[in-house]
Amino acid sequence: MYQASYLKHFTEQVFLSIGCSQEEARLASEVLVSADLRGVDSHGIARLAGYVRLYDHGRLNPKPNVTIAYETPSTAVVDGDRGLGLVVAPKAMEIAMEKAEKVGSGWVSVRNSNHFGIAGYHAMLALQKDMIGWTMTNAAPLVTPTFSLDKLLGTNPIAVAVPALTEPAFVADFASTAVAYGKFEILQRKGLPAPLGWAQDADGNPTTDSNAVKSGGGLLPLGSDREHGSHKGYGLGAIVDIFSGVLSGANFGPWVPPFATAGFMGVQQSVGLGTGHFLGAMRVDGFRPADEFKADMDKWIGAFRNARAVDGEKVLIPGDPEREMEAERGVNGIKLLEPVVLSLDELAKRFGIPFEINL
Amino acid sequence: MYQASYLKHFTEQVFLSIGCSQEEARLASEVLVSADLRGVDSHGIARLAGYVRLYDHGRLNPKPNVTIAYETPSTAVVDGDRGLGLVVAPKAMEIAMEKAEKVGSGWVSVRNSNHFGIAGYHAMLALQKDMIGWTMTNAAPLVTPTFSLDKLLGTNPIAVAVPALTEPAFVADFASTAVAYGKFEILQRKGLPAPLGWAQDADGNPTTDSNAVKSGGGLLPLGSDREHGSHKGYGLGAIVDIFSGVLSGANFGPWVPPFATAGFMGVQQSVGLGTGHFLGAMRVDGFRPADEFKADMDKWIGAFRNARAVDGEKVLIPGDPEREMEAERGVNGIKLLEPVVLSLDELAKRFGIPFEINL
Repeated sequence: MYQASYLKHFTEQVFLSIGCSQEEARLASEVLVSADLRGVDSHGIARLAGYVRLYDHGRLNPKPNVTIAYETPSTAVVDGDRGLGLVVAPKAMEIAMEKAEKVGSGWVSVRNSNHFGIAGYHAMLALQKDMIGWTMTNAAPLVTPTFSLDKLLGTNPIAVAVPALTEPAFVADFASTAVAYGKFEILQRKGLPAPLGWAQDADGNPTTDSNAVKSGGGLLPLGSDREHGSHKGYGLGAIVDIFSGVLSGANFGPWVPPFATAGFMGVQQSVGLGTGHFLGAMRVDGFRPADEFKADMDKWIGAFRNARAVDGEKVLIPGDPEREMEAERGVNGIKLLEPVVLSLDELAKRFGIPFEINL
Repeated sequence: MYQASYLKHFTEQVFLSIGCSQEEARLASEVLVSADLRGVDSHGIARLAGYVRLYDHGRLNPKPNVTIAYETPSTAVVDGDRGLGLVVAPKAMEIAMEKAEKVGSGWVSVRNSNHFGIAGYHAMLALQKDMIGWTMTNAAPLVTPTFSLDKLLGTNPIAVAVPALTEPAFVADFASTAVAYGKFEILQRKGLPAPLGWAQDADGNPTTDSNAVKSGGGLLPLGSDREHGSHKGYGLGAIVDIFSGVLSGANFGPWVPPFATAGFMGVQQSVGLGTGHFLGAMRVDGFRPADEFKADMDKWIGAFRNARAVDGEKVLIPGDPEREMEAERGVNGIKLLEPVVLSLDELAKRFGIPFEINL
């Protein structure tokens, strides 16, 4: 087990070692490890070596000059200057929130960035100011839209955070696919098949092969097949891609550059600058008095939390499982898988940072 | 077969007969019949008798005073004064577009409305001005969230319209459920079972009973079950409900009033005013020069349209099927089912409007 503070400190040292400023190294480590705390292990410190690989490949600028390329009172395009998405996204969210402060809402499309960690982190920044936060990002193409044999979309997540009064905030944060790619990696390690409806093979047939995406197949959009609405999951992923990539001038669709995970690092054609995100903030009191709204959110949450449920289950409020995990891991620490620990040990040796192997 | 112009004229006469103004009767008939033209038969003239029933039950104000209840430069709450959603929603979209004209984007949450027809119609209004249109609405509870035995959400659709340059616009318009309720009505008429993954029974078990929703069961969110991501469809439906209902001060969750279809007309508790919508408009050139953006949209659409597809299918661009249907039905006319024709004939007799039975 590792305490979050230990992992944050380690991560900060790594980002400092590749040339990030003190302030940005701290912010990036905060964002990255928040994924481990919230139980989204695939998007946390397991990816630290990947960010360093991006740097090694010249795809990451450790000292980015993040600028507003264009703006109106409620909209902007932010250029991330090839900086860490972990740093670019919170800066873009800050700009969205400043606009919301002034004119009720702010919407920022970001180009020239890369993987930004968990979408929910950035959306939740808005909660501090009684705003609704909205975050989306495109990602490297792993997903075959309905009827397609080609992979054209990423897992393209959406996160929306909404403040409540006495209840914890509503925080939805989900990929627009049936499952995230991380679920396949777990099955691959265990040598297990995947349920039907998660992936298709190279010929577009349903498959239980948990290696299908590596051998010409693709992840399926939310809905899994046409009969169960996969065209809706495809539409959702497409909206995320257009808002994040096309609106900003980043890459989009099949051209989104891969994150630096082994096997997905090919050089390729480019139609824009880096990866794209879309972040928005709306002041709740741009619509109704904040206390009235938040009291109604409590009522909303209560109605769902107290609904009758199937035996042994309960109706979950989006954000509850992650919040409970964060409370638990904040006390008991975070267990990392052996390959992750070894990847951190390798970084430790390379940069001369103290690191305890702890399995 | 009926020509769209004939159905529009008839619909206009009906709305005039219940006291709508000339201008609003024309607008409402335009919106309603656009659903029939675009192949969304469940949301078109088949519902005309339902709107009249709303009027008969005192739930519809034929001469609403649609007002802005509160606003900032980029946000507003609009009160629909119990008017036809078919009229309230385009007015709200106009307000969103005026705000976008001035400050880059405009976001309007609407209360005190009712069913607004097809979401796509309102989103597409933004296209004329090189804006991206966004529409959502909540609806009467038919959907059981993941693990819930209670129906807490409507089919809560989302529509997003994005302009392109030489390609037709991208128009995604979909419910946040595996299927719309209309699909069950078709199966009920034919006495056929439904595929697994569309509904659950009163005990929360998967069912093929196409009458399940009428006998204590519920529609399933997009994703169908937990293993295939139904919590994501639930999250999406929840976001639509919160933006449409809670943000505006309309009803939300299990309290959204039913549309006036037989069997779903019970009097019930209220936590806000009527049904809620959420409409937004963003100027494309609030982000990038419009021509650059639209040229990239052409590239996006081309990449998806020309992707390799499974045998006998093609990769569809959201909006293509509806646009093709509109072109076809605009020429060849619209075939209405017998019960729909008979419901129109009944309205014709009641209001003394000429109507040809045409099966």
